[in-house]
Amino acid sequence: MSGSLRLQQQIQFIKEIDKLKTILRQTQIMNGSRQENSAEHSWHFALSLLLLAEYSSQEIDLLKSLKMAIIHDLVEIYAGDTFVYDEKAQQQKLELEKAAANKLFALLPEDQSLPLHELWLEYEEQLSPESQFAQAVDRLLPILCNLENKGFSWRKHQVTLEQVLAKNEKWKNAAPVLHAYLSQLLFQAQDRGFFKY
Amino acid sequence: MSGSLRLQQQIQFIKEIDKLKTILRQTQIMNGSRQENSAEHSWHFALSLLLLAEYSSQEIDLLKSLKMAIIHDLVEIYAGDTFVYDEKAQQQKLELEKAAANKLFALLPEDQSLPLHELWLEYEEQLSPESQFAQAVDRLLPILCNLENKGFSWRKHQVTLEQVLAKNEKWKNAAPVLHAYLSQLLFQAQDRGFFKY
Repeated sequence: MSGSLRLQQQIQFIKEIDKLKTILRQTQIMNGSRQENSAEHSWHFALSLLLLAEYSSQEIDLLKSLKMAIIHDLVEIYAGDTFVYDEKAQQQKLELEKAAANKLFALLPEDQSLPLHELWLEYEEQLSPESQFAQAVDRLLPILCNLENKGFSWRKHQVTLEQVLAKNEKWKNAAPVLHAYLSQLLFQAQDRGFFKY
Repeated sequence: MSGSLRLQQQIQFIKEIDKLKTILRQTQIMNGSRQENSAEHSWHFALSLLLLAEYSSQEIDLLKSLKMAIIHDLVEIYAGDTFVYDEKAQQQKLELEKAAANKLFALLPEDQSLPLHELWLEYEEQLSPESQFAQAVDRLLPILCNLENKGFSWRKHQVTLEQVLAKNEKWKNAAPVLHAYLSQLLFQAQDRGFFKY
């Protein structure tokens, strides 16, 4: 085998993460033709974060936030995608994802594995400005998808407007302008029948 | 309509670029189940760039390179994907993509449109360290896909080892270690019958 052990590990990781392209989310892509996968979502998330960074209520390190967006869903390769409104699955989610992170990041050379693992955990813990603003953008995107697709995943899983509004409360302070804008769109969506009732 | 005009433009752009998820490339994802799309490729590109940055022969601004990776294929929303070994299509590619960039970036507020448009052009022109290293990673990924898929798109389009090696010459200086590693893998691929001859 050619290449140093280090490079081989890195290339092996790059091959392994290709699997994220096969992890399907509950949302559809905006033209409604199929379910979205977590790899293309991660791209959409990173670019949206870049465009909306000015709405963060706290100063953020853009590079750090972008890295979070790019790696935040990698654990789904082993742990699968958990629907945000499935409360039972959400309770088990963190343990499953921690085990997945241990397995996945260990594939990399240690000097790359540790900082990426920590960055993933920082996103999960939601204590830093970067993780809080990134989560706002991460939550915003499936709502935009649903608004384009007449509430596809909301109606499929009988999600109510109240449930969506309650989830959005968590990122209200991180991006108040985005939150207010989305809230208005959500009330309009209810008027158009995109929710259960 | 709620939200400032500025925010509406940004959200409109975020909706428009969702279309990149429907642009199919000639490569398959690594498990061979389907063609890869340009959105998930862009994510894979960004993360691979992050992991392989140490192999750039020149010092690079990582944030700038990451932004390039994230936006580099957006023009395909209007111009389509051009197969790298389709020499006839490659000749028309830049004009088509320039027109697409004019149309697409104009959707954003001007202070965001101009720098992103310039960054896209910088990637195309291949004069800066960031654009040169990014292109090395962009070219490396479909080769890794083909190595996983027994040369699927090479065999489909009758691409020879010589054509791939010639394309790779362009990024040799930007990432010599990656170039040497890939070259060895390509010769092994020929031995295994992944190319036309």
